[in-house]
Amino acid sequence: MKKIALLTSGGDAPGMNAAIRAITRKAIHEGFSVYGIERGFEGIINNEIRPLHARDVGGIITTGGTILRTARYPEFKNLDVQKRAYQILQDFGIDHLIVIGGDGSQAGAESLMRLGQSTITIPCTIDNDMNGTQYTIGFDTAINTVVDAVGRIRDTSNSHERVAIIEVMGRHAGHIALQSGLASGAELVLVPEYPMPLDEVCEHINKTHQLGKEYSIILVAEGAYESGEVKEYIKNHTYFDPSLTVLGYLQRGGAPSALDAILAARMSELAIDCLVQNIDNCITGYIDGQIRAIPYEKAKHMRFGIDKQQYELISILSH
Amino acid sequence: MKKIALLTSGGDAPGMNAAIRAITRKAIHEGFSVYGIERGFEGIINNEIRPLHARDVGGIITTGGTILRTARYPEFKNLDVQKRAYQILQDFGIDHLIVIGGDGSQAGAESLMRLGQSTITIPCTIDNDMNGTQYTIGFDTAINTVVDAVGRIRDTSNSHERVAIIEVMGRHAGHIALQSGLASGAELVLVPEYPMPLDEVCEHINKTHQLGKEYSIILVAEGAYESGEVKEYIKNHTYFDPSLTVLGYLQRGGAPSALDAILAARMSELAIDCLVQNIDNCITGYIDGQIRAIPYEKAKHMRFGIDKQQYELISILSH
Amino acid sequence: MKKIALLTSGGDAPGMNAAIRAITRKAIHEGFSVYGIERGFEGIINNEIRPLHARDVGGIITTGGTILRTARYPEFKNLDVQKRAYQILQDFGIDHLIVIGGDGSQAGAESLMRLGQSTITIPCTIDNDMNGTQYTIGFDTAINTVVDAVGRIRDTSNSHERVAIIEVMGRHAGHIALQSGLASGAELVLVPEYPMPLDEVCEHINKTHQLGKEYSIILVAEGAYESGEVKEYIKNHTYFDPSLTVLGYLQRGGAPSALDAILAARMSELAIDCLVQNIDNCITGYIDGQIRAIPYEKAKHMRFGIDKQQYELISILSH
Amino acid sequence: MKKIALLTSGGDAPGMNAAIRAITRKAIHEGFSVYGIERGFEGIINNEIRPLHARDVGGIITTGGTILRTARYPEFKNLDVQKRAYQILQDFGIDHLIVIGGDGSQAGAESLMRLGQSTITIPCTIDNDMNGTQYTIGFDTAINTVVDAVGRIRDTSNSHERVAIIEVMGRHAGHIALQSGLASGAELVLVPEYPMPLDEVCEHINKTHQLGKEYSIILVAEGAYESGEVKEYIKNHTYFDPSLTVLGYLQRGGAPSALDAILAARMSELAIDCLVQNIDNCITGYIDGQIRAIPYEKAKHMRFGIDKQQYELISILSH
Repeated sequence: MKKIALLTSGGDAPGMNAAIRAITRKAIHEGFSVYGIERGFEGIINNEIRPLHARDVGGIITTGGTILRTARYPEFKNLDVQKRAYQILQDFGIDHLIVIGGDGSQAGAESLMRLGQSTITIPCTIDNDMNGTQYTIGFDTAINTVVDAVGRIRDTSNSHERVAIIEVMGRHAGHIALQSGLASGAELVLVPEYPMPLDEVCEHINKTHQLGKEYSIILVAEGAYESGEVKEYIKNHTYFDPSLTVLGYLQRGGAPSALDAILAARMSELAIDCLVQNIDNCITGYIDGQIRAIPYEKAKHMRFGIDKQQYELISILSH
Repeated sequence: MKKIALLTSGGDAPGMNAAIRAITRKAIHEGFSVYGIERGFEGIINNEIRPLHARDVGGIITTGGTILRTARYPEFKNLDVQKRAYQILQDFGIDHLIVIGGDGSQAGAESLMRLGQSTITIPCTIDNDMNGTQYTIGFDTAINTVVDAVGRIRDTSNSHERVAIIEVMGRHAGHIALQSGLASGAELVLVPEYPMPLDEVCEHINKTHQLGKEYSIILVAEGAYESGEVKEYIKNHTYFDPSLTVLGYLQRGGAPSALDAILAARMSELAIDCLVQNIDNCITGYIDGQIRAIPYEKAKHMRFGIDKQQYELISILSH
Repeated sequence: MKKIALLTSGGDAPGMNAAIRAITRKAIHEGFSVYGIERGFEGIINNEIRPLHARDVGGIITTGGTILRTARYPEFKNLDVQKRAYQILQDFGIDHLIVIGGDGSQAGAESLMRLGQSTITIPCTIDNDMNGTQYTIGFDTAINTVVDAVGRIRDTSNSHERVAIIEVMGRHAGHIALQSGLASGAELVLVPEYPMPLDEVCEHINKTHQLGKEYSIILVAEGAYESGEVKEYIKNHTYFDPSLTVLGYLQRGGAPSALDAILAARMSELAIDCLVQNIDNCITGYIDGQIRAIPYEKAKHMRFGIDKQQYELISILSH
Repeated sequence: MKKIALLTSGGDAPGMNAAIRAITRKAIHEGFSVYGIERGFEGIINNEIRPLHARDVGGIITTGGTILRTARYPEFKNLDVQKRAYQILQDFGIDHLIVIGGDGSQAGAESLMRLGQSTITIPCTIDNDMNGTQYTIGFDTAINTVVDAVGRIRDTSNSHERVAIIEVMGRHAGHIALQSGLASGAELVLVPEYPMPLDEVCEHINKTHQLGKEYSIILVAEGAYESGEVKEYIKNHTYFDPSLTVLGYLQRGGAPSALDAILAARMSELAIDCLVQNIDNCITGYIDGQIRAIPYEKAKHMRFGIDKQQYELISILSH
């Protein structure tokens, strides 16, 4: 009986548990035995590997976080550590390793692949910033969390007729800011991809309020600006004294949205179907409405940035 | 200045207000003047047509229902009524009519098209059962509502170790049952597309509980079975005495999910962009990850049923 | 070391797990050893008794249902069964039994008390219908669930300008209907305590709509009317064709509200403090803002019905 | 016909709109005519006073914020400004002024009282820190919002086995931190009422983790510590590197909880009943489970701090 091991790595994201459940049950259905590794790649080194049975993953589909825990493990960049991990997996007789995580996690999987390990990566990060896929599990939950938070802040901003600045995650990519801005009717989003000088931001606010709006919402991706700086600048250069809220870790938790739970199930299914057919070392990418196995090498060249048309749509619709 | 009128028709769906906001503001941005028609097609006949300005649609993006109200209006199948409506739209000088609704609403738009009216349909119904699009606005919100309800019922079913039957909408299509079943980890879904004899249902429940599960969730699309009948049959043919919950109108309301609000914005943008380019009489379909204008005639032949592989995945993952 | 056993019984309610956690940890803090009994009183008979440690009750405070499971067990009315249960508790050396549940569960506790068992009852049922307390754990969560559901149904009723009938729990008492009606702005509530003839209901609806309201919400406690009958009567005697939604088991689940989790903690604390002081055979009642130990005998005579003034307030505020 | 004017003032709180609705309809029911003042006390000075009819307050009961807007207006401490406001209310013929807000708002009401204006204050602030009442409208919603946020942050803290610091509102009182800590099972709460040295905080964390807990949640009321300082201290004095989330304005918004909407209705009813009976210049206080009119003078001496026993209960239950 072939053995599959799975781990979650990097920042956690809603839907990781749904993926753990789906991989485990689908793999067992296809005749594999399944092992869970605790705390990501570090767990391999620490021999934290235990069997996962169908009943072990009951009741977790709608829970946030990951029952396998996760960790960042920078030491895994070291080739010696990778070799040690590879050897441990061999000793356990692990035929295939499934990694659930973001691009750092995929890099870990690829380094083991180079040593001969068969791997598959399930894209799972709230940031939606991986190559080879237009969608990563956890993103939909995160933007719904942001939209809910914006709604609450809108209530009080409206009552006080204030400008509200809300900082959201996104160090390198503005996906969360852009999509939650579109969904919540934000007046302005600041994203790393389209740097906007702060005096233009002020101008935009002034114009918005001349249209008769009595409050406005500005979403700032953390990679676009230090949000406190935006607040200060607006305060010093307009008549407005904005409030500031930093959503932070709130965006990482919660029960997965329906979409994230569904994609976790479907991507997990594809991962196991691939292994049955001896296809591996790929990411289960969501491309143009289809879930497909994209080899790591090919995924590198498939980069999906934020959509400029959607970015501009926010301005049009905020008028 | 060209005139656009818009109406919502048929069963309401979350995201209708987001679409009304987006159409209005995008159309104004493109130089149109915009009119809202109250209560669907009946509102044309009753001359319930009023200008919509950018400020009229503020603060509605996250609200459920429709500020334009909606109605079912079977009389509109009558050619004389259609002609009267066409004439009234002409009298008001309406260049383009945008209809937000499901397939019945699209049929209304098509009947006006045949009389010479330029129209566009934005697919908006919780049932996700329209031709020419793989996705209809409102569906994502509805399945999230169902998943939340299933979670609550799961708590009590688990505590009492009961079988829970939950009836969801879907007279002709099992989309809601299937997708919310996948997302919530239901043990079984009954959909009109794959009729399952009730003794097979009982067998399935028995098998599930032999696996060690202490409760199970069965989602029944209203078009698959009368849910009370399922309850009785199980009670009479197994050792289980299932509970029954009919979710009903709960599934129609609520703030739109992020995805529904985003698609409402993007489909509305496309609708106006089409009219600017003199493209009309089409549905703004979501096909393979893209939003595209699909002519009514072509849409007829693009039918997207539920996915058999996903249907079978539910069984695999419930083990 | 003295031994405490606890069980949950009857219909489950949000906050049961919060109470299990609080009892266990507070009791351990006070030097008791703690045992959990599975499936209510039946679990005693079946010897389903196991030690509970502080770590066993981690992570459950915000979960719905009960980790100890619950069951209805009509056989417990039989004196022979009670004696058997008493003997088993003696054999296990259980000094005190804590029962978490509604009035049926309290009756079970009292029958064991009569045989010599020391007991305490923590009032926990969504119905808020126990003597000796003005509040039962689970009620606040239930009415928030109902208010959320009413909000969703209001969206669609408003869009369609319909009368919506919503059936809520409450076989003998109208607490849920009344409080969720007040909180959601329902136009009318039908409760068992104040029977209203159906023609008066129709009159009320007609009057409401003459005031300019375009839709209305009627909450029906299941003990007041068969809700389908209300729907039919209104349909046959007014111009309205109401929609009907039966909320059912939805009202039983979900994470406990803050208030329910807080009262679970505080009532559990009082229960253990009582046992430390050799006070027992009482219910931890919430009376006039204080949590107090009310002896079963005294509790019998403290009956808190629904408040007539609040019932009338609904009518006043719906105008 | 006697005239009542109402205003919302200071920080907004969920339930303000429910109170506006209830006051308006109950007052009309009792034969008053009702006026709404925009933007708090400043709105009096600016003559922003308009009639409120029963239909004007439809559909607002479950919305956050305040349809009358609110503002902080420090100039109102000036006696001349107060006199001007009093005169304007006289000119409008306002018999009674109802102020919905916190202690600053009550101070404004009292200053007008001293000039001869009849007033009533409805306690409404998320901070629950007013004299003369054990409960203020908005508090229950705020702690439910915090509990939900803690749940999300718990998911990710658990997955990463981290210490999470969460800053909540409460400059002078720890009510929010304490009650949401009890409800969410936080390991530690830092409140202004019981200052805890930071090395004791570290000790507490170390002890918690020696008990086998793999993560912990610390709630910090903003008045207890600068939360960034807590984070730094823990990082420098333990092996833990805590995450920090500042919930900020999130706590102010959202639909009111059932309890807040109910108390808004009941306190509003009492306010109008008082005016009918010529009782005024009081706060509608919640005392020991009853809503009562407490004269301003008497309210001053009724101070309800946080409960020490509940504060200690958090420690006991976190073990």
